[in-house]
Amino acid sequence: MKKIINHPENAVKEMLEGFAAAYPDSVEYLADHAVIKRKHLRKGKVAIISGGGSGHEPAHAGYVGEGMLDAAVAGEVFTSPAPDQILAAMKAVNTGAGVLLIIKNYSGDVMNFDMAAELAEMDGIPVETVIVNDDVAVEDSLFTTGRRGIAGTVFIHKIAGALAEKGASLSEIKQVCERAIERVRSMGMALSPCVIPTSGKPSFTIGETEMELGMGIHGEPGLEREPLQSAANIAEALAEAVLHEEIFQTGDELAVMINGLGATPMMELYIVNRTVQQLLKDKGFQVIKIFIGEYMTSLEMSGCSLTLFQVDEQLKELLLAPSDAPAFKC
Amino acid sequence: MKKIINHPENAVKEMLEGFAAAYPDSVEYLADHAVIKRKHLRKGKVAIISGGGSGHEPAHAGYVGEGMLDAAVAGEVFTSPAPDQILAAMKAVNTGAGVLLIIKNYSGDVMNFDMAAELAEMDGIPVETVIVNDDVAVEDSLFTTGRRGIAGTVFIHKIAGALAEKGASLSEIKQVCERAIERVRSMGMALSPCVIPTSGKPSFTIGETEMELGMGIHGEPGLEREPLQSAANIAEALAEAVLHEEIFQTGDELAVMINGLGATPMMELYIVNRTVQQLLKDKGFQVIKIFIGEYMTSLEMSGCSLTLFQVDEQLKELLLAPSDAPAFKC
Repeated sequence: MKKIINHPENAVKEMLEGFAAAYPDSVEYLADHAVIKRKHLRKGKVAIISGGGSGHEPAHAGYVGEGMLDAAVAGEVFTSPAPDQILAAMKAVNTGAGVLLIIKNYSGDVMNFDMAAELAEMDGIPVETVIVNDDVAVEDSLFTTGRRGIAGTVFIHKIAGALAEKGASLSEIKQVCERAIERVRSMGMALSPCVIPTSGKPSFTIGETEMELGMGIHGEPGLEREPLQSAANIAEALAEAVLHEEIFQTGDELAVMINGLGATPMMELYIVNRTVQQLLKDKGFQVIKIFIGEYMTSLEMSGCSLTLFQVDEQLKELLLAPSDAPAFKC
Repeated sequence: MKKIINHPENAVKEMLEGFAAAYPDSVEYLADHAVIKRKHLRKGKVAIISGGGSGHEPAHAGYVGEGMLDAAVAGEVFTSPAPDQILAAMKAVNTGAGVLLIIKNYSGDVMNFDMAAELAEMDGIPVETVIVNDDVAVEDSLFTTGRRGIAGTVFIHKIAGALAEKGASLSEIKQVCERAIERVRSMGMALSPCVIPTSGKPSFTIGETEMELGMGIHGEPGLEREPLQSAANIAEALAEAVLHEEIFQTGDELAVMINGLGATPMMELYIVNRTVQQLLKDKGFQVIKIFIGEYMTSLEMSGCSLTLFQVDEQLKELLLAPSDAPAFKC
């Protein structure tokens, strides 16, 4: 295991300390609960919280900022945060208008966030939850009932954050997020595994000339293991799988995310984008905005995912609204 | 070689196509010359151009945008662009106030950019050049006389771009950039090599428990090969090496960049930042801004670099001025 870390057991804690030290003007670190929260809260604004296992950096702390999340809760690597951590985050950022929890669809996350929501309600905090399940690769995978939540979650953070900033109510934000979740789909592929610091072992093995389509962001199995294809073939396979969903229709306006899984050079993401854009154009889609980079990673996994988000006028406006979150400046 | 590419010979061309396709509202791709230029030029503004070998993405095209570069010229991977490419970029973005060329200090780049500058002057374009040499690791390395230019170059792009946007003259921008270059120093380290697409072979070999301090961004040899250290020791070694330069004095205001070389998880960069910030605080420096992410990479090399930039009031204002370059939004 070749990593720039100290003791593997301290990696998450030290990562959060290092993150907080990078943005001292905008965030605070609640060390007892592994929570990164906005330093300056706005009274009466609905608070938006997300989080999950660590190892997906810059998710989720990188999305804490004006126009996006109010807090991010970090579990250990690839492990859901515990309910008491999530509850602490809710208490720290609720200013009276309630809290929306944005959850990626993994059984552990759903259970713990739901439990935290119940505890918060007992404390008188209004809470709603939404569950993101954008990954079209597999149903009922390891750790998940239904589709998994992956990079498309970042778009939901943005929609929720922008709407909250405009003063929308908790129920309205939940409703719009659910509409957005219905319209976002992703699929990923991997060339190489990642290594959880405390285990020190690769999450799976894969041959020097193989790739896996539909790989999850924790190294969960995907659709199929096959010989390494060209970038054009990979881009086509991802786009075809995502566009196979019947929500997408010729003429739709789309936002696109080409997401690197951690170790993929930007050069390769640009090359993937080249084919994706050609294909979307050929099929008559209108692309309104393209996001390329590392948004939802899997430690040092090599590979990428494609997310398509079918926007209407309201979703487009919210997606393009200002954000000063470190990993999503716009 | 496990990469998401098509034919290795086409990687740079297709990467630039994919980049241009990602930002159609703000950039244009001059395919004949491998140049990415701003779509909307402002008459009478000094044009700022940089570039160099490819493989350092998001450098240099990612820095094309309002408040930063007017054009980026791409060579093949780790190979300087030719003078005619650089000349074409100058002709494409000069609006009458002249052009500043920002060059990283490698012999090939310096020769080709200088030759292009001479050709442009013969065509009546006012040209100035500055050479960035921020890497304190080695003097007179492979490909370089003097110190190499690495991630600190991005700060110079920002200073030059912000000053040009304010309407400064070519000679004033050159002068301020030279002051900035005097105040920026970097050092990197690597855990693993990268693979140039057309060669298909790792740029060097390194043991499973080794790291190299002072490694260049093309895999050039560094200071020393040693057993893999903890993140804290690595951060200290980089910071000590950079701070050893006599330009840095207790009480100085610094901007900091923790740059990933391509395959390094953000988690590890945050952990490095934790120690760097502790150390700078202990030594009495005032950190005004921290940049963490991939700014000047080396394909899929694993490792990082630390850049410190000692700013005065003018440099601070320019560094923090707005930029809409895709890889440096602020």
